[in-house]
Amino acid sequence: MTITIIGTGLIGCSLANRLKETRFAQRIIGVDNNAAHLRIALELGWIDEALTMDEAIGQSELIVIAIPVDATLQLLPGILNKLDKQVLMDVGSTKDIICSSLIDHYNRGRFVATHPMWGTEKEGPEAVVKNAFTGRVAVICEKDKTDTDALQIVEGLYKKIGMNLVYMDSEMHDIHAAYVSHISHIASYALSLTVLEKEKEEDAIFELASGGFESTVRLAKSNAAMWVPIFMQNKENVLDVLNEHISQLRKFKAAIEKENTGYLVELIDNANKIKRILK
Amino acid sequence: MTITIIGTGLIGCSLANRLKETRFAQRIIGVDNNAAHLRIALELGWIDEALTMDEAIGQSELIVIAIPVDATLQLLPGILNKLDKQVLMDVGSTKDIICSSLIDHYNRGRFVATHPMWGTEKEGPEAVVKNAFTGRVAVICEKDKTDTDALQIVEGLYKKIGMNLVYMDSEMHDIHAAYVSHISHIASYALSLTVLEKEKEEDAIFELASGGFESTVRLAKSNAAMWVPIFMQNKENVLDVLNEHISQLRKFKAAIEKENTGYLVELIDNANKIKRILK
Repeated sequence: MTITIIGTGLIGCSLANRLKETRFAQRIIGVDNNAAHLRIALELGWIDEALTMDEAIGQSELIVIAIPVDATLQLLPGILNKLDKQVLMDVGSTKDIICSSLIDHYNRGRFVATHPMWGTEKEGPEAVVKNAFTGRVAVICEKDKTDTDALQIVEGLYKKIGMNLVYMDSEMHDIHAAYVSHISHIASYALSLTVLEKEKEEDAIFELASGGFESTVRLAKSNAAMWVPIFMQNKENVLDVLNEHISQLRKFKAAIEKENTGYLVELIDNANKIKRILK
Repeated sequence: MTITIIGTGLIGCSLANRLKETRFAQRIIGVDNNAAHLRIALELGWIDEALTMDEAIGQSELIVIAIPVDATLQLLPGILNKLDKQVLMDVGSTKDIICSSLIDHYNRGRFVATHPMWGTEKEGPEAVVKNAFTGRVAVICEKDKTDTDALQIVEGLYKKIGMNLVYMDSEMHDIHAAYVSHISHIASYALSLTVLEKEKEEDAIFELASGGFESTVRLAKSNAAMWVPIFMQNKENVLDVLNEHISQLRKFKAAIEKENTGYLVELIDNANKIKRILK
């Protein structure tokens, strides 16, 4: 199969690599406004050639759009207009606004809305991770609105790279994504800012940064171009979770202020229940 | 050297293992009120024998106390009373209250206040990590209050297991520890509670938990017995950092509510500066 990847960044190129490794794709065409990304993706062998959008679409059976969700929202209708038998899929972290925007599109059936739950805090084609995606969940939304053949191709793709398929409507997806992904990023950004705020006074802090700190603050390296549009498109859910998170932090604050150790133990014992889910 | 480890949990046994591996210790004696931990530590070979506190002190050149900081504070003066030429060190996450409590002790010179910046979210002698501590920082506080020979032994120990020594007063230590360690734990606990609060409604969330979530919530598995006393002993610094953290989260909340994407980009760009410190 010939596949076009629009967006030759971390996600697009990590996927390209897996599709070649598993022989799901024989040929990968890269499309990107970012000339540097495109050149590096070619040099590193993630893509076989670089073409313009129109050239690429004409030569492909499947088009994967792997760019920030604001740009995805803008480009999708135009790409869908150009499709005949081809299949178009996205891999973005928000699904509801994107699905809603295409609901009346005459060619909606050719589009598969997906979210493979994998990523790192790095960016660009240099950051490709080998064997990415394997063992993680790929969410497919609104499958009833997708043509059967298009759905089957995308299901086949995710199975081939070792992902577990989960189906849900786009609203549910966005609620879950706010909890398992978006809030972690905000918490991590805020933690980074908290520490950097005090670094002005305290240089030694960096010498001491321990493993626990590294792990909670890792996501704070993730870039604004990708994450601001996610927070905007999933605004209501993100705010709902963020309010809950601030209220949980206030419980710790109150318990510590009042030296209410019994309540602190209760809060931590409850937080420990996450062990049920994450081994 | 014969070394007694009081507290045969994760830290005590991981240290015991390193001290044997590096031949800094020829013999390790374990002391613990927790009979199960003591038995497992013996079975797994982390300690050579289990004795009572008094027997162990009599036969050791160095005594390491590796128990929660509230129990450390209680036991230290009594142990110090029993020492002749032996050296006593602690490895706890708070230093100021512990140092202050011993300031007028006639035998203060035999005690070395330390904090090796290593740990995991697990507990007990089954959780021992091989090659632990290596490459991390060990903080030594109030070294001027310690006898030269006692200080040299403890410095030798940390160098032998590959740690980098940093010296500071106990107040500074506690401020830094609040930033690089204690706040990460509170943020992680609160994140776990945030997600678990909604899990009542949403079962699917666990299926979707991604790598980013795992990394930010990992520390939420850490136990209350260890962490509540840390938060209590470092109350003022922890509250100071926690207030700052909540105020950073409120900035995200305000920016998202108002769809102020310029401000969101600025916040995230600033948070990204953590890359300077954590590669």
